[in-house]
Amino acid sequence: MYDIAIIGKGPAGISAAITAHARNKKVIVFGGDSKKLLLSPSIPNYPGLMEIKGTEFVKRLNEHLASTDAVLSKKMVTAVYSMGGYFAIQAQNDMIEAKSVIIATGVDFKKSIENEDTFLGMGVSYCATCDAPLYRGKTVAVVGYNKESIEEANFLSEVCSKVYFISMTREPYNFNENVEVIKDIPVKFEGHMHAQKLILKNTEVVADGFFVIKDSYPLTSLVPGLDVDGPHVVVNRAMETNMKGVFAAGDVTGRPYQNAKAVGEGQVAALSAVDFLNGRDK
Amino acid sequence: MYDIAIIGKGPAGISAAITAHARNKKVIVFGGDSKKLLLSPSIPNYPGLMEIKGTEFVKRLNEHLASTDAVLSKKMVTAVYSMGGYFAIQAQNDMIEAKSVIIATGVDFKKSIENEDTFLGMGVSYCATCDAPLYRGKTVAVVGYNKESIEEANFLSEVCSKVYFISMTREPYNFNENVEVIKDIPVKFEGHMHAQKLILKNTEVVADGFFVIKDSYPLTSLVPGLDVDGPHVVVNRAMETNMKGVFAAGDVTGRPYQNAKAVGEGQVAALSAVDFLNGRDK
Ligand SMILES: Cc1cc2nc3c(=O)[nH]c(=O)nc-3n(C[C@H](O)[C@H](O)[C@H](O)COP(=O)(O)OP(=O)(O)OC[C@H]3O[C@@H](n4cnc5c(N)ncnc54)[C@H](O)[C@@H]3O)c2cc1C
Ligand SMILES: Cc1cc2nc3c(=O)[nH]c(=O)nc-3n(C[C@H](O)[C@H](O)[C@H](O)COP(=O)(O)OP(=O)(O)OC[C@H]3O[C@@H](n4cnc5c(N)ncnc54)[C@H](O)[C@@H]3O)c2cc1C
Repeated sequence: MYDIAIIGKGPAGISAAITAHARNKKVIVFGGDSKKLLLSPSIPNYPGLMEIKGTEFVKRLNEHLASTDAVLSKKMVTAVYSMGGYFAIQAQNDMIEAKSVIIATGVDFKKSIENEDTFLGMGVSYCATCDAPLYRGKTVAVVGYNKESIEEANFLSEVCSKVYFISMTREPYNFNENVEVIKDIPVKFEGHMHAQKLILKNTEVVADGFFVIKDSYPLTSLVPGLDVDGPHVVVNRAMETNMKGVFAAGDVTGRPYQNAKAVGEGQVAALSAVDFLNGRDK
Repeated sequence: MYDIAIIGKGPAGISAAITAHARNKKVIVFGGDSKKLLLSPSIPNYPGLMEIKGTEFVKRLNEHLASTDAVLSKKMVTAVYSMGGYFAIQAQNDMIEAKSVIIATGVDFKKSIENEDTFLGMGVSYCATCDAPLYRGKTVAVVGYNKESIEEANFLSEVCSKVYFISMTREPYNFNENVEVIKDIPVKFEGHMHAQKLILKNTEVVADGFFVIKDSYPLTSLVPGLDVDGPHVVVNRAMETNMKGVFAAGDVTGRPYQNAKAVGEGQVAALSAVDFLNGRDK
């Protein structure tokens, strides 16, 4: 059982991990490198690192993180369940347990597909590993936004008879032969009680199940029960959410979207988690 | 008139200045180098600068600050007055005007002398330049905690007939001849409506006026009208205080006392000040 599970490996998550490590806590950090940082040409306002390139900042943060003994997992977390006293964290095919959670997933303004939320759990899934067994020998469609989605589609193709892959990524792929790639833009899910059809700009796909594999998930499905305000988690100055033992930091807590704010909040979230753990262990 | 006056040159103040500069605001920063940073042997948890020495961190922050066009003043601010639409900032013998203020003064747990607050403005003063004229040809005592206090005592000795200097600092001094140095520990002010006597551990000093010159001032006398909670300024998540146009950041807003938190809050305070200025200039 980890003391703290940190969801997100941007500046907020890394800062939380570094401070939690300094306080001797057992930490796991989920996620890949921050795409926002990798896209930042030159950051003028991170104190102490003048005009640093985003790629260089990622390198330095990763080195700092590697100097701790935090466990790293590149997997995307699809759900965090409160188990009354601890949390179960679903990360693709892994299920991990932790006494507390810090949400540092950033914000993402990619719009969901129309009705994606309506049909979530009713024919629409974010997790191939979790839900593939439901579609053994059947037809599924994957809307894939990243590299992992290609791996997930190949995994599904071993279980399902037919997989449509709607490609929203430029990652190169090498699919099994029962995977059919569709280059089109998803617009809307349709169905009666259960998603049956994905309408695209120029065509449509009928399937038994639909998988949407992307770089971020709506907070309400990621952490059921979490108090949110649009794309943001509601927190107080101690970075506590409405759920005891769940903290948040960085862009996901709201504007301004900035690096120094993210590292500051990551640090405060970590120290609040430490307080929570210490109170709890007493 | 400055857009933003930043009181404090620790990580919080410097971060605020860097972000305010990135937003093209005219900034002045008051204060000397952070004593806390200078005392930190090695900082394990400032993301991106692994195990950095405090002195090295100060150097990097100062270099970053110097790359902006923020004006720097080493002077201590003794009072901030709200002028209805702008602020007047008293920094020793300077009076500076700014449209907004960020308080980033850190926290200081040096206890005040007993009755210091009771007699403040009634025989006890924090500002030699401001109040020297009241004591022309009279006897004053200076309780001096830093280098500036030595300069202030010498300045007072040009105006007053006699100056007692109660030395609480290890700084070397070279006083005018009407200055008498007392090595003892101040305990308590006494007087009737007005401070008349300073009781020390082993002796006492009678004078017409008393000056306490130290590295930080109680928030309530620094910014009259400010909503405080003990040694901390009350702020919301946008780093706004109860006074419109006055923001705060860093240790002064409360625990945890940490560098990443300080730079994060400095950044948020600067951006909130920018929002305030933009709304106001419209
Ligand atoms: C082009 C550009 C330029 C910028 N320039 C500046 C600048 O000059 N100064 C400045 O201060 N800021 C700048 N920013 C903003 C800055 O990059 C962000 O504020 C910062 O990255 C926020 O950090 P974060 O840790 O909150 O989130 P992010 O950096 O977005 O990191 C989020 C992390 O969460 C992970 N994640 C998300 N969902 C999951 C999940 N379900 N499971 C596991 N992991 C997950 C991601 O993989 C990633 O690691 C810029 C942004 C962009 C895009
Ligand atoms: C020995 C030690 C070790 C530490 N180690 C760590 C660590 O490992 N990690 C960590 O994150 N934190 C550490 N800290 C804490 C960290 O140093 C503080 O959290 C940080 O310095 C706070 O920044 P600040 O800008 O809020 O205040 P400060 O750094 O205290 O700066 C306050 C500034 O305000 C100025 N000032 C005050 N009053 C006035 C006035 N009236 N007019 C003008 N200027 C004024 C001062 O001159 C100074 O420039 C340590 C502290 C100490 C003492």
